[in-house]
Amino acid sequence: MAITYELIKRCSKTGARAGRIHTPHGVFDTPIFMPVGTQATVKAMSPDELKAMGAGIILSNTYHLYLRPGHDLVAEAGGLHKFMQWDRAILTDSGGFQVFSLGPLRKITEDGVTFRSHIDGSKHFLSPEKATEVQMALGADIIMAFDECVPYPAEHEYARQSTERTTRWAERCRKAHTRKNQALFGIVQGGMYKDLRTMSARDLVSLDFPGYAIGGLSVGEPKPLMYEMLEHTVPLLPQNKPRYLMGVGTPDCLLEGVMYGIDMFDCVFPTRVARNGTVMTNRGRLVVKNAEFARDFRPIDQDCNCYTCRNFSRAYIRHLLKTEEIFGLRLTTTHNLHFLVNFMKEMRQSILDERFLEFREEFWAYYHK
Amino acid sequence: MAITYELIKRCSKTGARAGRIHTPHGVFDTPIFMPVGTQATVKAMSPDELKAMGAGIILSNTYHLYLRPGHDLVAEAGGLHKFMQWDRAILTDSGGFQVFSLGPLRKITEDGVTFRSHIDGSKHFLSPEKATEVQMALGADIIMAFDECVPYPAEHEYARQSTERTTRWAERCRKAHTRKNQALFGIVQGGMYKDLRTMSARDLVSLDFPGYAIGGLSVGEPKPLMYEMLEHTVPLLPQNKPRYLMGVGTPDCLLEGVMYGIDMFDCVFPTRVARNGTVMTNRGRLVVKNAEFARDFRPIDQDCNCYTCRNFSRAYIRHLLKTEEIFGLRLTTTHNLHFLVNFMKEMRQSILDERFLEFREEFWAYYHK
Ligand SMILES: [Zn+2]
Ligand SMILES: [Zn+2]
Repeated sequence: MAITYELIKRCSKTGARAGRIHTPHGVFDTPIFMPVGTQATVKAMSPDELKAMGAGIILSNTYHLYLRPGHDLVAEAGGLHKFMQWDRAILTDSGGFQVFSLGPLRKITEDGVTFRSHIDGSKHFLSPEKATEVQMALGADIIMAFDECVPYPAEHEYARQSTERTTRWAERCRKAHTRKNQALFGIVQGGMYKDLRTMSARDLVSLDFPGYAIGGLSVGEPKPLMYEMLEHTVPLLPQNKPRYLMGVGTPDCLLEGVMYGIDMFDCVFPTRVARNGTVMTNRGRLVVKNAEFARDFRPIDQDCNCYTCRNFSRAYIRHLLKTEEIFGLRLTTTHNLHFLVNFMKEMRQSILDERFLEFREEFWAYYHK
Repeated sequence: MAITYELIKRCSKTGARAGRIHTPHGVFDTPIFMPVGTQATVKAMSPDELKAMGAGIILSNTYHLYLRPGHDLVAEAGGLHKFMQWDRAILTDSGGFQVFSLGPLRKITEDGVTFRSHIDGSKHFLSPEKATEVQMALGADIIMAFDECVPYPAEHEYARQSTERTTRWAERCRKAHTRKNQALFGIVQGGMYKDLRTMSARDLVSLDFPGYAIGGLSVGEPKPLMYEMLEHTVPLLPQNKPRYLMGVGTPDCLLEGVMYGIDMFDCVFPTRVARNGTVMTNRGRLVVKNAEFARDFRPIDQDCNCYTCRNFSRAYIRHLLKTEEIFGLRLTTTHNLHFLVNFMKEMRQSILDERFLEFREEFWAYYHK
């Protein structure tokens, strides 16, 4: 097995669990948030800075790397780890999500998806086999099956057909996947329909993947509906495998996701809003770019121990953002990632200490969305 | 004296000299290149990274800080050092160069310059007194007299009148300057006229500034003409004070400047071209963004010991630049600044070892502009 999940502690009152995942590039604790490095770089950050803040795994996007610089080039460089000088774990998505998001630029058949590049309009074809081949060339520790993310809202009939195809594609990915030092995860779909989620989970579990993602959530549906789907779906997945909720990265959703038994998360949210001048704290978001912080010489968060908060004031960061200085984006991104990494660490500790629900209660007492 | 110049070694064959400047924020060796941090940040870099590469002093721009965030705000933050978390030396220019560059947006009188902000068109007035007041509020270790940079080309009559006014303004700056832990440098002007350079130098030296800049060079004139002006002007300046050549930052000009006896340089060149994908080496420039480097897995410079060259390939850096990733700009900027800091260090060592001319010869044997 390329990766193994070690279950360390289960919360006695909720589905939350503390674990540890062993990969060819090191071990990381779960639950974990994975910073997104779409184009073989976590925007504005260096690999060393990510390591210093305790990031154990990052996500990179197959669709983007396939187009630029090309998976063959990355393979020639010695693989993604070497290319970007990141020696801890990497997960790549399958490219499915991006390709399906292209709208009129793509066409789906049972075989795969024909699409046009968002960069230069060139024509490409991605299939379960091709997505697997590309991900094998990139060489991440964990790769994802090629799936269709059922859009929201979707008719039951469309969602059923799409979900069944996703399962057939998962089987094809499994067959195409021959790289030993790499784990292929299946992705549970099913839209917002419990019967389809059950079907998807059951079929994929029978294929015995080393880990399972839950896709098709956080796609525009109300949060209570997402939580309902998680509550229903997670228990259908095996206890001895990691569970990964795709595209989720706000503190409230991370907390609730963990409560339902999720181990891994990723989202561009913390890095994207950072570049817009928004920072995350225990009490909610703070738009540090706003005029009210012009003469605020306090750190973003008095309780935060990150490089940004240890050294720089809101006033300075606001000045950098207003003058469009790169260092401003570095500082807000650093804080947001540090905040989430630390948030997950504290959450994990609360599970180990059997006080996860107290942790959750305290969080909700202070947090304003 | 807020700053003192310590002359350590004079080249016996040229004007080159190795020295050391003591400031309220530490000591740095000369000759030195000062990275430019226009808006209280050296673009793309952190203060720690600048320290790690051995930068002893940076330059910041009064015009920009006066407009954003405002010198009063910087003073309220505890001064520029504290605002930007840079505890080594800082030099601020007077704002004169930027204001005069505004063209139709400004109007000059004996009193000062009325101008409109390039950001929002708001009206402002900068005079010797005001420029000094702003620089005192910013609190750099070295500040500059408010001058007019004589444009190139300029008629003798215009250059004479402008240069005389610059001297009168220098006197007014001197009177207005009351901050003790800060040195005010005079700026020698005179266009490309030796008689005016002589007049300017003589008049300013009689005002006994703790250091002298040579302004109005590197403004579009041919390089041999700049060198001729340097050869003529530098000997007119006292040996026991630092000499600063403004706006020069290519290796060839740094080398020749040092040969004529210059101690300090600044230029946006290395950081600006870095952001365009151009890197500096001993052999000349390399446009790492070019297609020829797409599959070049060597570092930018095999002989360079910077963070970039120790870790990343040309292929990776090119990928980051092509995909407009911030980390690419960080990597090229890091290399270029490291290269210049190191280049000055080696040059200084050659002066100490009495082999400056050999160093120069070797440089010219490999360097292609
Ligand atoms: Zn922080
Ligand atoms: Zn280098």
